[in-house]
Amino acid sequence: MQDVRVTFLGTGAGMPTRARNVASVAVTLDGRVLLFDCGEATQHQLMSSAVRFGAIEAIFLTHLHGDHLFGLPGLLSSMSLNAREKPLALYGPAGIAAFMRALPLYHTSFEVEIHEISGAAAFRPPSGGYVVDAAPLVHSAPCFAFRIVEDDRPGEFDVARATALGLPPGPAYGRLQRGETVGDVKPSDVLGPTRPGRRIVYCTDTRPCDAAVELARGAGLLIHEATYGSDMAAEAAERFHATAAEAAGVARDAGVAQLILTHISPRYTDATMLLDEARAVFAATELASDHATFEVWR
Amino acid sequence: MQDVRVTFLGTGAGMPTRARNVASVAVTLDGRVLLFDCGEATQHQLMSSAVRFGAIEAIFLTHLHGDHLFGLPGLLSSMSLNAREKPLALYGPAGIAAFMRALPLYHTSFEVEIHEISGAAAFRPPSGGYVVDAAPLVHSAPCFAFRIVEDDRPGEFDVARATALGLPPGPAYGRLQRGETVGDVKPSDVLGPTRPGRRIVYCTDTRPCDAAVELARGAGLLIHEATYGSDMAAEAAERFHATAAEAAGVARDAGVAQLILTHISPRYTDATMLLDEARAVFAATELASDHATFEVWR
Repeated sequence: MQDVRVTFLGTGAGMPTRARNVASVAVTLDGRVLLFDCGEATQHQLMSSAVRFGAIEAIFLTHLHGDHLFGLPGLLSSMSLNAREKPLALYGPAGIAAFMRALPLYHTSFEVEIHEISGAAAFRPPSGGYVVDAAPLVHSAPCFAFRIVEDDRPGEFDVARATALGLPPGPAYGRLQRGETVGDVKPSDVLGPTRPGRRIVYCTDTRPCDAAVELARGAGLLIHEATYGSDMAAEAAERFHATAAEAAGVARDAGVAQLILTHISPRYTDATMLLDEARAVFAATELASDHATFEVWR
Repeated sequence: MQDVRVTFLGTGAGMPTRARNVASVAVTLDGRVLLFDCGEATQHQLMSSAVRFGAIEAIFLTHLHGDHLFGLPGLLSSMSLNAREKPLALYGPAGIAAFMRALPLYHTSFEVEIHEISGAAAFRPPSGGYVVDAAPLVHSAPCFAFRIVEDDRPGEFDVARATALGLPPGPAYGRLQRGETVGDVKPSDVLGPTRPGRRIVYCTDTRPCDAAVELARGAGLLIHEATYGSDMAAEAAERFHATAAEAAGVARDAGVAQLILTHISPRYTDATMLLDEARAVFAATELASDHATFEVWR
């Protein structure tokens, strides 16, 4: 895969404000989209983004609180009105199937393959390229973190070495990169060591916890909730959320390349304080805003 | 009551577009608000309107299709996060109570008094001033029209007559208007005939039907769905919707003062044709748009 991009659709906690909608993040992997959480009006946010409804392959719900869930029925309805036929995988905690079944007068034009997550889960699309797994977090309701793991990527192609072995640039290079032997030249002759795939981890809603650290270990990008600042540290603990500094502690302990904070309480009309508090612990931190897009390079 | 105002929050059918959100209309009666239908992102539309969440006394759902319903859980959640304590009356067809019960991890900080409508229903707020009743429509699912009937209003005060009877302008005028006798002067001596209260009728989703005509008879304002134009008349019949001309026929037959068209299909990016077709049948027609507000005078 070449192109991996994260688009924040909603970055607020609990209820929408004019600045931040409730939770949703889209991850685009070479044109295919995974949606994480689906708060109310996620479809409205999609309409004003570059992410296409039809490209969504799977939806992952961290938990069943309304600010992560209530946009799901409407999004699937609109996909149906757009005559979607392709099945859609839906992952969420136990209870998601009952919720979908209880919707009145509801049907979709396509199959929704519901997977209730218990201990762990793994999603691998038919088209391959990546896998998504899950780990339980520490919240007031059953809640899961998700990790996208891109397939290992071939090593760097050594053009000088290939030329020395008598292969000029051309279609043979592609064949070697795809693992074929060309004449006497084996892929291992011209390719560097296999590079591990990129890893993106999404952790919300949760206290800072070992499970998050383990899942995020070595990831290129950790998206972690930071509902509160240090001014509300007691409330964060009581309500099973994290402060910005606690999120940064998870990023530091996991050794990730980059941290992005999301799920910001409506009380912070200016969340600069949260960013500052996180950066004091882990420098490579950014603050998500609705419609912000980040390319993931490693 | 002095001030009666209708604010359209969503005027589209089926799915949101950038121009029209899914169904919701707020009616403000002297600062108290009745909400009719609650499509997804109604709370977002409220946030960008002058209508206050806290002023909502009751919510009426015409039917349980998602484009009229899926904003309800989120709106009530946000009211809870705003620490609402005042009970809220909720009217809708059979099934609305089960839907609310099936919401996972859900509670509200205030009592939701659910009333499932069968044949007819009547809501009268503790503070009085109006009543809301309902009548069944003709749709693909159980669906109800609603009518707000303002209490009868005192007749016009005849200042010349009061002066001739020896009463100069002053507090006595108010007492007479409230039905008290002042000295020898009875209210009937100075007040014209009692004026009937204003009537506002909301009809969606439906075929044009006698029940709508009966409910709307003599109303000051009829809000009626006009999902389609004459180009889609067959589809309107098949899908149990109305064309703009059919909506206008209901307005004409009911003898209302004004018609406003809403629930416009996303196919009409310019709905001028629908307005023209309706006005050919009933001249006093307007086309709703999101956030449009109309004062109701009669």
